[in-house]
Amino acid sequence: MRIAVIGAGHVGSALGRAWAWAGHVVMFGMQSPDGPQAHSFLEGMPSGAGVRATSVAGAAREAEVVVLAVPWDAVPAMLRECGDTLAGKVLIDVTNPLKPDFSGLEDDYHVSGAERVAGWVPGASVFKAFNQTGAENMADPAGYAAVAGGIRPVMFACGDDAVRKPDVLRLVEDAGFEAVDAGGLESARLLEPYGMLWIRLAHAQGLGRSFAFALLRRPNGQGGTSGS
Amino acid sequence: MRIAVIGAGHVGSALGRAWAWAGHVVMFGMQSPDGPQAHSFLEGMPSGAGVRATSVAGAAREAEVVVLAVPWDAVPAMLRECGDTLAGKVLIDVTNPLKPDFSGLEDDYHVSGAERVAGWVPGASVFKAFNQTGAENMADPAGYAAVAGGIRPVMFACGDDAVRKPDVLRLVEDAGFEAVDAGGLESARLLEPYGMLWIRLAHAQGLGRSFAFALLRRPNGQGGTSGS
Repeated sequence: MRIAVIGAGHVGSALGRAWAWAGHVVMFGMQSPDGPQAHSFLEGMPSGAGVRATSVAGAAREAEVVVLAVPWDAVPAMLRECGDTLAGKVLIDVTNPLKPDFSGLEDDYHVSGAERVAGWVPGASVFKAFNQTGAENMADPAGYAAVAGGIRPVMFACGDDAVRKPDVLRLVEDAGFEAVDAGGLESARLLEPYGMLWIRLAHAQGLGRSFAFALLRRPNGQGGTSGS
Repeated sequence: MRIAVIGAGHVGSALGRAWAWAGHVVMFGMQSPDGPQAHSFLEGMPSGAGVRATSVAGAAREAEVVVLAVPWDAVPAMLRECGDTLAGKVLIDVTNPLKPDFSGLEDDYHVSGAERVAGWVPGASVFKAFNQTGAENMADPAGYAAVAGGIRPVMFACGDDAVRKPDVLRLVEDAGFEAVDAGGLESARLLEPYGMLWIRLAHAQGLGRSFAFALLRRPNGQGGTSGS
């Protein structure tokens, strides 16, 4: 797939690198795609792979999938910069609507950030994913397999477009995670607090950043259907 | 410890049974503690253990720890029935503030159910825990160990009383889970959506009820400190 990654921070670069390794064409949308910073950034990417830097709107225009990997407060400006290029595209919202001091989610999170993004870009198919763990885990999700009997970190994705959802789940798998469909975009109301839980555990609660969420499954699907 | 379990449904009975096995005194608070239903309920409990049925207020009065294991909409009536017996007690809120059709959390969940409980019982030390998985998992959390390299299902607990929190975390461990402190009671704003995510995955998303959340940890705590 042709993927535009908007934002070349730790999260965006980890995801872009993984997708390049998996054979996708990755375009990083940057403010100064010809500058020395972009040049050195690209040198850190897999060589020979289809990775390049271009403008934000240029990346979005050429892509089938646009990944919004910027801080929450930069989202409106980035969407403005993309202009009408997002119509008909898959837009994966990787952000968490954090308070400026990262202490929690914005108070009005009964409407999720992802739903607000969808309201701002009505022509795009918005999904939420990759907001539920740290950048180190996105850079190396396979690092857990040895200690976990092959169990991979889980990454939930949600969105309303059932036709495009398999592509999004495949990108989650290509990034090294167990991909699980968490339902429609409204489920971002659950996945954003889940992302905030990771951040709070890692920092305020002192677990550090070397843990990831996962799912355990009973052998043979044992277990009844009673109660909740 | 002396534990009152208010509610003898699937969740309450699973927890009470586990704690009885672990050597705690468990009192089930029931509407008809001398009736035939209570009699047959107690026959299913570990024999010789310190398990009995009594009135709701009677159980709460004798306990150090009171576990609120009733549906969310029954909470106010149960708290009224406990009256002033809860002052100074640890109160573990196991509920999720679900909409009547279980489709989601109540719309105003930017204040958590646990914080609302704390407001209703200002004299108690309120904790949130055991709201994040299904009753089958509470009945048999060890059932995952064989397939997960010894990794147990995780259960987060949060609450503001740092002095009593170790007791709560120990009860989580005694119930068979990896206990993780998720911070102050405000973290229930994260743990309740997390519980709702389990319910949504199990039912609306078709995963079934034979999965549990867990944490993976990198060997030697590898992993950097960059980004988020």
